[in-house]
Amino acid sequence: MKLKVASKILDANDRIAQENKNIFKEKGVYVINLMSSPGAGKTSLLETTIRNLGGKIKVGVIEGDITGTDDAARIDSLGIPVVQINTGGACHLDANMINEVLNDLPLDELDVLFIENVGNLVCPAEFKVGENMKVMILSITEGHDKPLKYPLMFQESSALIINKIDLKSFLDVDVEKIKKDAASLNQPIKIFEVSCKTGEGIDNWVKWIQTLIS
Amino acid sequence: MKLKVASKILDANDRIAQENKNIFKEKGVYVINLMSSPGAGKTSLLETTIRNLGGKIKVGVIEGDITGTDDAARIDSLGIPVVQINTGGACHLDANMINEVLNDLPLDELDVLFIENVGNLVCPAEFKVGENMKVMILSITEGHDKPLKYPLMFQESSALIINKIDLKSFLDVDVEKIKKDAASLNQPIKIFEVSCKTGEGIDNWVKWIQTLIS
Repeated sequence: MKLKVASKILDANDRIAQENKNIFKEKGVYVINLMSSPGAGKTSLLETTIRNLGGKIKVGVIEGDITGTDDAARIDSLGIPVVQINTGGACHLDANMINEVLNDLPLDELDVLFIENVGNLVCPAEFKVGENMKVMILSITEGHDKPLKYPLMFQESSALIINKIDLKSFLDVDVEKIKKDAASLNQPIKIFEVSCKTGEGIDNWVKWIQTLIS
Repeated sequence: MKLKVASKILDANDRIAQENKNIFKEKGVYVINLMSSPGAGKTSLLETTIRNLGGKIKVGVIEGDITGTDDAARIDSLGIPVVQINTGGACHLDANMINEVLNDLPLDELDVLFIENVGNLVCPAEFKVGENMKVMILSITEGHDKPLKYPLMFQESSALIINKIDLKSFLDVDVEKIKKDAASLNQPIKIFEVSCKTGEGIDNWVKWIQTLIS
């Protein structure tokens, strides 16, 4: 019974995700669904990515949070079009939530739309929202056991951004194990090691985004 | 439609949670449902708590993970009765999952049962499993914005353990804000600042557990 309901919801979600995808394609917007645990650095990555793109690529952002507008305020202060979705308790964004805010963004003017999902290493991986690709962030403070414990997120993501590497010498964490286990789950996953705080490694990620869009 | 189904599931869950609670009461076991984001330190807290209790209180553990047995192996190596539940994708433990493993634990011999939930700062807070109280862990590496962004978890928890304080000087994190915001959501929440790595603050937490049970 529970499974049946979930599958109906997922079917409906997939239909609306496809509608969103068609709209994004028509408007020429490349869409990245950004996922992670709470506090892994999704908004910080967006801030540093936007700064590093230097206005050369037109970026828009949809912020997903259970409640509050803190993250949208951070993006807004950079002069970037942003819409905040409050899920009101739901632990992930779904395609319908995205569909409902599409008119609030200047899609005709955008090259890239980042969708920052609710902080959660499980549920967001199950729901398509119409994106071109999913990208996940893992903070090294979360430990090296995460790929094997939360495999779906790693399997669904086209890229893994390993963040907070500036803290590496203060932690007992095996970053090579993270990379090895992520690759064992998803061989072609693209991996970036970065620090949003110091800027280390951000140039490689930003170059990759530029390549995808050009 | 979605809401209706969810409420039915929650009703059924509450009934089974009450059954579990009755069993725990009859057996004289105090049950703590431990919740956090992935990698905040639930298993590390259990390891250091068990070591600090020094066998004076009989502890059992139920480990909840989507997949894998790493956490149960860590507890097992301490000579503590432990059962691993693999949710097979589900983002939280529910009362029925707990009910199904009760016969695998020596409940008659236990004083405390810790239930380590799936790493997720959202969904586990919605599901009772028959516990006496919920306790949450927040790693300071997750940032000080978490109480206001994930309010239900803070509202449902009787205690907040702020972990990894050994990293404080390397982070831009305002621990006082975490405490203030948590208290604004849940005035009587009991707050402990600890480092499972250095052992700092663990004695206060362990003493509190001893007081609750005696």
